[in-house]
Amino acid sequence: MQTMIERNNAPAKNALLKTLHLLGAADTIVERVFEMIGESKFFSDFTRDDVEQLAAFMQVYRADTGETVIREGEVDDYLILIVEGRVEISKADSQGELRPMTVVGPGATLGEMSMIDGEPRFATCIALEPTIFAVLSRDSMVRIIIEEPGLGSKILIKLVTLLSQRLRATSSNLLHQLER
Amino acid sequence: MQTMIERNNAPAKNALLKTLHLLGAADTIVERVFEMIGESKFFSDFTRDDVEQLAAFMQVYRADTGETVIREGEVDDYLILIVEGRVEISKADSQGELRPMTVVGPGATLGEMSMIDGEPRFATCIALEPTIFAVLSRDSMVRIIIEEPGLGSKILIKLVTLLSQRLRATSSNLLHQLER
Repeated sequence: MQTMIERNNAPAKNALLKTLHLLGAADTIVERVFEMIGESKFFSDFTRDDVEQLAAFMQVYRADTGETVIREGEVDDYLILIVEGRVEISKADSQGELRPMTVVGPGATLGEMSMIDGEPRFATCIALEPTIFAVLSRDSMVRIIIEEPGLGSKILIKLVTLLSQRLRATSSNLLHQLER
Repeated sequence: MQTMIERNNAPAKNALLKTLHLLGAADTIVERVFEMIGESKFFSDFTRDDVEQLAAFMQVYRADTGETVIREGEVDDYLILIVEGRVEISKADSQGELRPMTVVGPGATLGEMSMIDGEPRFATCIALEPTIFAVLSRDSMVRIIIEEPGLGSKILIKLVTLLSQRLRATSSNLLHQLER
């Protein structure tokens, strides 16, 4: 496993994004992102300045109904923040059949794990309706850590907190299953 | 849930540590920690300077055979790095019976989740033999982020990577169980 800073990126990186609709730099939607913050766990204690700083490192995309924003098994490394719309998360079972797991909406973040560890995508995320989302790539995250260490720490703290809570929930669920 | 920086600490914080044997500041064992780094995922790309810097924020403790270093359900907020010895991790089942889950040794880190999110301990960790470990409290982590942002980012990147990998493993395991 390569760490965040060392990793070399293959040329075909994040090819899936090229199938979607780039709307522009995220700083054009700072206002919208900022309004959405109340609903987003991820941004719960970000200031307006933090959001403006962060938006300068993100791009905004649109996916139409049925389009895939993240595909299980692919090697790419962006995190997405849903600004508008709904996304279904599903995972292939042992027969290769896609099994829906959950649906998320505005304020949810997806794809943190691959952004962090560079490993293949764990699940597939498909837009259930026209969906607008902001993208933070691993390269941008590395630049934030180097160029804006204060903001970098704030995002990293959010990520560890988010992952820690998911790990608790998933571990509890697993233990419950094992006990049955 | 309170975030890392905001949290107020209750006076009885980390009371369990007081039942163990404080050996001193971790900078007295930098050499030993540094030798151990090869075995530790956590420190895999830390330089000697990083370890020296970090050690200044840690304390070293000893637990005798059978002593508890982390107790499920307790609210405390330190991470431990095992320097020497072996620790069994177990969790109470629905009958309250402790069920052993795994055994870890030198180089392993334990207790990251509570250090990060301040929530109660998820499992119990008991020394299987005389065990020496270094302790990093949440307060120290906050100080590192503020006073040594470069080192802070490095530790946070390690933590997100570690949690991400555990979450992948646990989620896979859970899906496997659910499919059975």
